[in-house]
Amino acid sequence: MLPIRKTNKRQLILEEAAKLFKQKGFGGTSMRDLAGEVGIEAASMYNHIKSKDEILELICFRVSSTYISQLAEIEATDASYVEKIKALIRLHIRLMIEDGAAVSVGNHDWKYLREPALTEFKQARKQYEKGFAALIEKGIAAGEFQPVNVSVALFTILSAVRWVELWYRPGRELSAEELEANIITMLLTGLEKK
Amino acid sequence: MLPIRKTNKRQLILEEAAKLFKQKGFGGTSMRDLAGEVGIEAASMYNHIKSKDEILELICFRVSSTYISQLAEIEATDASYVEKIKALIRLHIRLMIEDGAAVSVGNHDWKYLREPALTEFKQARKQYEKGFAALIEKGIAAGEFQPVNVSVALFTILSAVRWVELWYRPGRELSAEELEANIITMLLTGLEKK
Repeated sequence: MLPIRKTNKRQLILEEAAKLFKQKGFGGTSMRDLAGEVGIEAASMYNHIKSKDEILELICFRVSSTYISQLAEIEATDASYVEKIKALIRLHIRLMIEDGAAVSVGNHDWKYLREPALTEFKQARKQYEKGFAALIEKGIAAGEFQPVNVSVALFTILSAVRWVELWYRPGRELSAEELEANIITMLLTGLEKK
Repeated sequence: MLPIRKTNKRQLILEEAAKLFKQKGFGGTSMRDLAGEVGIEAASMYNHIKSKDEILELICFRVSSTYISQLAEIEATDASYVEKIKALIRLHIRLMIEDGAAVSVGNHDWKYLREPALTEFKQARKQYEKGFAALIEKGIAAGEFQPVNVSVALFTILSAVRWVELWYRPGRELSAEELEANIITMLLTGLEKK
């Protein structure tokens, strides 16, 4: 049973690390802080994980590979482009709500990755943005979307879902489902009543 | 003529400071760096300005008071709510393009303000957001806007115009006018073709 317990401990370390990085920043978090949160001795942390750099890599690439694999799944469906973009918007909001600390690390602390991880992470992000942009472009070509500039459309969507982290607190006045529905209305239908 | 020359020098100091703060961060910029950019002796900086804290205050409050006074002007017109929101979106994009370094300091480095300036700045921002939200609310009540959640609408708009700083480079593939028109289409009309 040891390997499984070890895996679980490793998972727990990553979860607590994401929370601490979000709260205190990557630079402001020590392995000792992290051991305290996980509830083990600082020295035995190294039985589970090589270094703080390794933790950061694991968190960032878990987030980026979730986005990329979900994008691939959405691309492979035969839903309309409108439905595909809606699914991507929902994906961003759900990941933010369910795994907010890791998403925040992927948004902010990735810049502390060391090479070659830094370059790989930037490439993964670029790959994701290109795939997202391609769906917008195809949706325009198919006559489903307004003929907008693709970069403006992409970054307006990404900024809207990304900023949710900074202002939204689940359940306060707006459920996750209402948040999704309202953001989709803003981005797909627009504020103006037709 | 001396007072005028002094004012210009002060203005030049603020402009160079905003650029340096944006580039190296508030903490990473020294009065010596700044004197170098302005082209005067570090010691004579203090003839024009009291401290780095004073510079930060002057930049942040110049930005916030521009937003607040422009909002008041827009509120006072008898344009439709659609036109008022469009005017606010254009205001954000223009300030970002024409005075990008100061806007960036107002977005990021305000957290290094000292009290009581910090509290005053947060109040000014809150006041601006409330005024912006009130226009959305009135536009919904007037039947001009979709009945969206006002916070979602407000933060979707603010995040879209704020992120322009991070990805837009003037003139590369998109003029400032095209950028404005495309963001307004995304936020008011929506991506989906009706």
